[in-house]
Amino acid sequence: MATSDTPQVKDLPIGLTDTGTRTETDSIGEIQVPAGHYWGAQTQRSLIHFDIGDDRMPKEIYHAYGYIKKAAALVNGSAGRLPQWKADLIARVAEEVIRGDLDTEFPLYVWQTGSGTQSNMNVNEVISNRAIQLLGGRLGSKDPVHPNDHVNMGQSSNDTFVSAMHIAAASMIETRLLPALDRLQQATQTKSHEWEHVVKIGRTHLEDATPLTVGQEWSGYAAQLTDATDHLRHLTRGLYRLAIGGTAVGTGLNAPPGFGDDVAARIADLTGRPFTSAPDKFAAQASCDALVRTSAAIRALVAPLFKFANDLRWLGSGPRTGLHELILPANEPGSSIMPGKVNPTQAEAMLMVAIQVIGNDTAVAIAGGEGNFELNAFRPVIINNILHSVRILADMTEHFRVYLVDGARLNTGRLAENLERSIMMVTALSPVIGYDKAARIAHRALDEDLTLKDAALKSGVSPELYERVVIPENLTRPGAAGTSTDENSDHTRRDRS
Amino acid sequence: MATSDTPQVKDLPIGLTDTGTRTETDSIGEIQVPAGHYWGAQTQRSLIHFDIGDDRMPKEIYHAYGYIKKAAALVNGSAGRLPQWKADLIARVAEEVIRGDLDTEFPLYVWQTGSGTQSNMNVNEVISNRAIQLLGGRLGSKDPVHPNDHVNMGQSSNDTFVSAMHIAAASMIETRLLPALDRLQQATQTKSHEWEHVVKIGRTHLEDATPLTVGQEWSGYAAQLTDATDHLRHLTRGLYRLAIGGTAVGTGLNAPPGFGDDVAARIADLTGRPFTSAPDKFAAQASCDALVRTSAAIRALVAPLFKFANDLRWLGSGPRTGLHELILPANEPGSSIMPGKVNPTQAEAMLMVAIQVIGNDTAVAIAGGEGNFELNAFRPVIINNILHSVRILADMTEHFRVYLVDGARLNTGRLAENLERSIMMVTALSPVIGYDKAARIAHRALDEDLTLKDAALKSGVSPELYERVVIPENLTRPGAAGTSTDENSDHTRRDRS
Amino acid sequence: MATSDTPQVKDLPIGLTDTGTRTETDSIGEIQVPAGHYWGAQTQRSLIHFDIGDDRMPKEIYHAYGYIKKAAALVNGSAGRLPQWKADLIARVAEEVIRGDLDTEFPLYVWQTGSGTQSNMNVNEVISNRAIQLLGGRLGSKDPVHPNDHVNMGQSSNDTFVSAMHIAAASMIETRLLPALDRLQQATQTKSHEWEHVVKIGRTHLEDATPLTVGQEWSGYAAQLTDATDHLRHLTRGLYRLAIGGTAVGTGLNAPPGFGDDVAARIADLTGRPFTSAPDKFAAQASCDALVRTSAAIRALVAPLFKFANDLRWLGSGPRTGLHELILPANEPGSSIMPGKVNPTQAEAMLMVAIQVIGNDTAVAIAGGEGNFELNAFRPVIINNILHSVRILADMTEHFRVYLVDGARLNTGRLAENLERSIMMVTALSPVIGYDKAARIAHRALDEDLTLKDAALKSGVSPELYERVVIPENLTRPGAAGTSTDENSDHTRRDRS
Amino acid sequence: MATSDTPQVKDLPIGLTDTGTRTETDSIGEIQVPAGHYWGAQTQRSLIHFDIGDDRMPKEIYHAYGYIKKAAALVNGSAGRLPQWKADLIARVAEEVIRGDLDTEFPLYVWQTGSGTQSNMNVNEVISNRAIQLLGGRLGSKDPVHPNDHVNMGQSSNDTFVSAMHIAAASMIETRLLPALDRLQQATQTKSHEWEHVVKIGRTHLEDATPLTVGQEWSGYAAQLTDATDHLRHLTRGLYRLAIGGTAVGTGLNAPPGFGDDVAARIADLTGRPFTSAPDKFAAQASCDALVRTSAAIRALVAPLFKFANDLRWLGSGPRTGLHELILPANEPGSSIMPGKVNPTQAEAMLMVAIQVIGNDTAVAIAGGEGNFELNAFRPVIINNILHSVRILADMTEHFRVYLVDGARLNTGRLAENLERSIMMVTALSPVIGYDKAARIAHRALDEDLTLKDAALKSGVSPELYERVVIPENLTRPGAAGTSTDENSDHTRRDRS
Repeated sequence: MATSDTPQVKDLPIGLTDTGTRTETDSIGEIQVPAGHYWGAQTQRSLIHFDIGDDRMPKEIYHAYGYIKKAAALVNGSAGRLPQWKADLIARVAEEVIRGDLDTEFPLYVWQTGSGTQSNMNVNEVISNRAIQLLGGRLGSKDPVHPNDHVNMGQSSNDTFVSAMHIAAASMIETRLLPALDRLQQATQTKSHEWEHVVKIGRTHLEDATPLTVGQEWSGYAAQLTDATDHLRHLTRGLYRLAIGGTAVGTGLNAPPGFGDDVAARIADLTGRPFTSAPDKFAAQASCDALVRTSAAIRALVAPLFKFANDLRWLGSGPRTGLHELILPANEPGSSIMPGKVNPTQAEAMLMVAIQVIGNDTAVAIAGGEGNFELNAFRPVIINNILHSVRILADMTEHFRVYLVDGARLNTGRLAENLERSIMMVTALSPVIGYDKAARIAHRALDEDLTLKDAALKSGVSPELYERVVIPENLTRPGAAGTSTDENSDHTRRDRS
Repeated sequence: MATSDTPQVKDLPIGLTDTGTRTETDSIGEIQVPAGHYWGAQTQRSLIHFDIGDDRMPKEIYHAYGYIKKAAALVNGSAGRLPQWKADLIARVAEEVIRGDLDTEFPLYVWQTGSGTQSNMNVNEVISNRAIQLLGGRLGSKDPVHPNDHVNMGQSSNDTFVSAMHIAAASMIETRLLPALDRLQQATQTKSHEWEHVVKIGRTHLEDATPLTVGQEWSGYAAQLTDATDHLRHLTRGLYRLAIGGTAVGTGLNAPPGFGDDVAARIADLTGRPFTSAPDKFAAQASCDALVRTSAAIRALVAPLFKFANDLRWLGSGPRTGLHELILPANEPGSSIMPGKVNPTQAEAMLMVAIQVIGNDTAVAIAGGEGNFELNAFRPVIINNILHSVRILADMTEHFRVYLVDGARLNTGRLAENLERSIMMVTALSPVIGYDKAARIAHRALDEDLTLKDAALKSGVSPELYERVVIPENLTRPGAAGTSTDENSDHTRRDRS
Repeated sequence: MATSDTPQVKDLPIGLTDTGTRTETDSIGEIQVPAGHYWGAQTQRSLIHFDIGDDRMPKEIYHAYGYIKKAAALVNGSAGRLPQWKADLIARVAEEVIRGDLDTEFPLYVWQTGSGTQSNMNVNEVISNRAIQLLGGRLGSKDPVHPNDHVNMGQSSNDTFVSAMHIAAASMIETRLLPALDRLQQATQTKSHEWEHVVKIGRTHLEDATPLTVGQEWSGYAAQLTDATDHLRHLTRGLYRLAIGGTAVGTGLNAPPGFGDDVAARIADLTGRPFTSAPDKFAAQASCDALVRTSAAIRALVAPLFKFANDLRWLGSGPRTGLHELILPANEPGSSIMPGKVNPTQAEAMLMVAIQVIGNDTAVAIAGGEGNFELNAFRPVIINNILHSVRILADMTEHFRVYLVDGARLNTGRLAENLERSIMMVTALSPVIGYDKAARIAHRALDEDLTLKDAALKSGVSPELYERVVIPENLTRPGAAGTSTDENSDHTRRDRS
Repeated sequence: MATSDTPQVKDLPIGLTDTGTRTETDSIGEIQVPAGHYWGAQTQRSLIHFDIGDDRMPKEIYHAYGYIKKAAALVNGSAGRLPQWKADLIARVAEEVIRGDLDTEFPLYVWQTGSGTQSNMNVNEVISNRAIQLLGGRLGSKDPVHPNDHVNMGQSSNDTFVSAMHIAAASMIETRLLPALDRLQQATQTKSHEWEHVVKIGRTHLEDATPLTVGQEWSGYAAQLTDATDHLRHLTRGLYRLAIGGTAVGTGLNAPPGFGDDVAARIADLTGRPFTSAPDKFAAQASCDALVRTSAAIRALVAPLFKFANDLRWLGSGPRTGLHELILPANEPGSSIMPGKVNPTQAEAMLMVAIQVIGNDTAVAIAGGEGNFELNAFRPVIINNILHSVRILADMTEHFRVYLVDGARLNTGRLAENLERSIMMVTALSPVIGYDKAARIAHRALDEDLTLKDAALKSGVSPELYERVVIPENLTRPGAAGTSTDENSDHTRRDRS
């Protein structure tokens, strides 16, 4: 396809040394943009009309856009809709976008048009001008690489922006969040194995309950993490279906037949992830449902992580007047006024991150329903909250593992002492002597400040029975208390009568 | 197993004709309960201590408990831990619970102990006393069927209540919500097919956009519903894993080995659903994670349903000054003061139900993280919100279909008129004449109040080109506008140079 | 005004003995309604189209409507727009509505038209037919008391329903919630005074901190409650402004000038609360902002109540392996399997209620923004959530006080023991010997398992200094540790140099 | 107080030219920090343990801390607890903090210890080292200005951090958010006046209703804003009460009597805002209730702003197939594919910001309840969400006014046409001819596609009556339709009979 007409592409590094401003145009008219930047008129207008707060559209969106623009250019080139040299040039610059080399050229805010059009145009404009630079042309001329006609060929913001959202979210979840969760799960499992024979008193309603092993308790944390992670992994697959090919309203107007499939296939090839073209483009553009479900799955991580962090800070509480069954790493001084204080700061940070994720997901849930007709125009708030949640959860999970879980140690003295003092092992006697009598023993122990054994013996339980039944280790597994047959007692024997 | 000792079970109908009160006891002591009811001391105490608001523990929880008590009794009987006659008797009464025949005997409030113990004891007490009645015994004697020792044998509230939550939620979702969603999806699909050739103007950002068919628009609604329903169906499978067998803290203390598996298998048999015993009981009792995920999946229905309802009320707005492309059924007078007014009331109810579901799910999300150590003691608030959401969403979905979707008709006159008036079909010209020139035509049409055609022709587009390219039907599918090759225009021809 | 034309009003009790159905009509046509009920065609249609879930419009809304209908009738009568006998008759029946005597005649669901029109028409229809009954007329004839023309005279659902929401919310908050909060605040204050001299170890980050008195800790709970209650009281005043008089869209069409003011004044007179007519009816009908703010103020109660309940259950945890500084009342057995267990059930119920209130308020917040043009059509979901929150919070607050706070006792032995064991009183040495040296003493105490005193003395602190500075009682107030002057030590003396 | 011992303070600009690292110490031990920065060991440890996401503690918190450190130093100096020269030096550096000159020295993340201790220590360390620099001392020596003993004298993170939160929030709300709201309210009021005589058709349930003026509609927006702003202004006053003086657990240990009052008075003096010392320090430190209430009041802004933005985008919808009663400013091109498209982007951004604020507030609500005992350790997530909401709402409100409200124009042609076409002015006939007959006319108009007038006349209404009653202008105010007396018609005359 390359002919003698193919222009010369120079090998210029990224960067513009011009100062002052340059005139750019769009359908509204002319506008001055900073000469040191590649962006054009629409980006500049957005910077003026939407400099709201400090929230910038996440860079990951632009990197994802790089894949889309590259894939679309290559497909357009292959099909002869773009001259090959132009397709290659767009693809080359898109690669710079993917690599993050043009990050500073994407300054737009989250709070902009609800379709993400301004960010799409930002990408189109930057690629156009960078390509023009490489051709030795005049920036802002849109010639010979036009931001709309060529970089955006066969595309609309309405199909590409939500595609970029899918690509960015899937990528961040798979490369940052899931690995961090897997590592935490593994670290937790390791602790569970390490402590599988350490018996401790259980707690329900915060109140003393029957014993279990520390390993069993931690197997619960690990299992919760496994389930939540599996769930998120499953959900992320929903992100592989891209709206690309639907253009303005889902019909694919101005895109050739098969364009969505071809571009999605190219993106799959470039990213190594199995992206495909969404089967119903009207749903894909009018909603952000797959993302809303993903946000909900991210929020579902909150339950296991919140409980884990909460349990650890309580188990580590003290050192003298709390539970203190667990000794947490002393990473830093805990107080500006109380010398020597050590606090469960990683757990606190995790709890706060978890709360933030609930808040973020609430915003996503509301925005997810607010689409109208052929477009959900609440996309920036959706993707920003999702990527925010992914980012802080991934980092937090990693820190929680390294600075809290890995370094946690058992206070075996306290564990043994608590086991000794508890009276809830009376439960093991219940199948033998009946619930009502067992309850009276427990109340007696409390009222008279007795150990369980003393209270049991004073209440007529024989020492032999007590010794045979109340063995903490045995109480940590079913049947092992030896009380599951009916021959043990008058109590159950009555049942035969 | 039945011997000559087996007592005679009478065939008495449900009901107590006694008046006044009866003395019942528990480990706290004696208490008077209404003689006309089967419940015992702990139920009565809960009624006193927790008569908070009007929210009662949903009946579905008790029906689910019926399965658990029946299954446990049968397993205990088979294994010889209970005499067979006693197991059979408990199973018989549990069957009455399952059928709802004892519903009035379960009066407890949602706002009670966080473990659901009081509702479990309510079931145990009612089954005990009803069994005693059938044996001709003395109510409140706990003899020969003891609420704790026999009805609750091998169980704890900590494993059974969360099991009942799973059974109730899975059952309601599968028998009420999913069928309603499937029917709505089908009704929507039917409309999509019916209207597949009616072209209309699309709208993005609420602003006129390029055309699509009404059938395409409705295919989007249908596809959103399909995806959301599939997702919920997938999630519900997580509810099949039951905590049963974990007893007090997950260790299975006082249950024999294999008890959880056996009881789950019986429940599966009785319910026809593939329930199994959860692989990690510590996770299963210390969390409600599967339910929290289910709640999130229910909330994920909000996005498609909110948009669907919102679109319908807007499309039906008018009749004279709104969009009014759709004519909604006039089910009832709309105003107490404005005669003849008809409002999109089903859509409004759906929007409100959707909002309620978001609120309910927020409560579930918070409660889901709040467990401590071996128990999540926030179960009642979790299950009540989930079942509430299921109930109102199922009914609402059904009403929305019957009273809104099924009866919706197209206002074909208005649709055609809008199509005629719109100027956004200029988009089809863009690949031929370039984005910038097309934009100037659009602005001209607006500024000079012209039709698109007039503005195009006045701007130099040839009538032939216009007629060839701007064919609404063709604009509803990719490539069909005939503009995807480069030969069409000077504009794209420049690309070859 | 009463003339010889005035019809005879009979003194008939409420109730219809007819069976079967009766024909009623509205602008849609005829419909059969149950002959034993007063309601008419529109109520019946709503029952058919909106039997969604179990949520019924709260009775308090109808009682509030009773005031509105009575007040409007009296104003219309006084002005001569209604014959006096008719105004009096409507007022008489409205009084029956206010008293709750007609509660069973208001069966409609929450999930109905977003304006509340169906509930307004339910009231209009019931008053019409009840009035007709009292006149010996034919039910359903609308003659001589027409539901729209007479009972609804000068009114619309759009102004009256939101007025009823204000009246119901203000009334429930003032008669149920605020008094319960005041009583809890007082009970808490009483405990604070009772325990003002009991010194305990403080906890920050769950970790041992410096001492305070139990009374100080409880003064915090009391102060939080005071502030939150004051805030709610302030907010409730915003509900006194009623939309009444705005009719359909806020303009007051079909109402005479001054009608809103007159009716509001009558309502104020009837209720004893300072209701007035809202200054801007367009805002009053197009939004529910005052109610949304009230919901937020109700939710603001969550913070103090959640913390209070959470602290109490932790302070009461144990009895043997928790903090157990507080002994909570044993209201009921805590476990179906663990005999003798007592759980912090009132605290758990409070935590769950608090979480529900957050969820309810989330729904209100979303619905509050969703109005369009001249109407917020999300009123039922707003008022149902607010009244639900008020109802459960009021009852819960009362139960929490009676069954938890009032009966809580201190475990003075444990409190003293904890005080003795803690090392964080090292803080008092810090101003004297410097933070860094104090920190070394604290770490030494922990590492070598020493008391603070032993560690301090071994580290070179003189016994005199220790005895003078580390006096727990003194550490509970500023300056009293005697360390606030610079003469105490080399450490601070260095500052003078 | 200044003596000959007073050291020489040099006049050095901010900045450290050292490269590499410097050894700093804390109670954990030594650590290397970048030599080019002022911060010390605890800041450095926090950077290592908490580099989570991109969220940094807002700068406003540090500026607020500047006031606290300055005020505390001056009070300590005046009382002789610090040498005057040292107090003055700390105050001088604190002033640099206030001015933002040291902003780059405060790099810590939001996700850190829940008390904010690390940010407090960051401030203490920076002030210490900057002061030491000015004295020509050795950085990291803590001599003669010690971060804990001197900069933090009489303080704890537990009282100062929440004080800084109050100061920062109050300041941002009062200087940024409230003024922006006031300006928007005024701009809206101006439009309301400008358009007070333009009659339009009202809409309820999105359906045609009775007329009002555009000015009346906008008076509703303005009134909503006024009420919401007044409410926020009221709530902000709650932030004036500072925890300062409570030190570690609220008792004021290590602070002299009156310290909190004195420091608060100084802060009031320095900031020009009426800060005082909180009456109950236990509540002030164990909760963030005043901030949670403030967050709720910020969220209460969502309702008016969401509706305003939503109405504007719908009123501006079209241009050809929407409502298009309002012409919104065309700030930028709206589509990358549809030439000439203009979208309601400011409205969309406002809707998204509003949704974000709901999400942020949800996080605050949850975190607000999670305190334990003497500390709410969820402060960073609370203040970050509040300041985020304030920042984006303030900016958004400003942009919404400048780029949307100010430039909005009426489409008077469309307004008149809609008024002409509507049939809901039939409502004005209702008091004259009765609701039922009026309803029949409305239905006839619709069924036969007639104007209201034609339908009325065909149904027997006299032309005279119609002309007298159905005057759109008159229908925009009460009584003006001339139908409020009974003499008009047979219909109401019947009432007299």
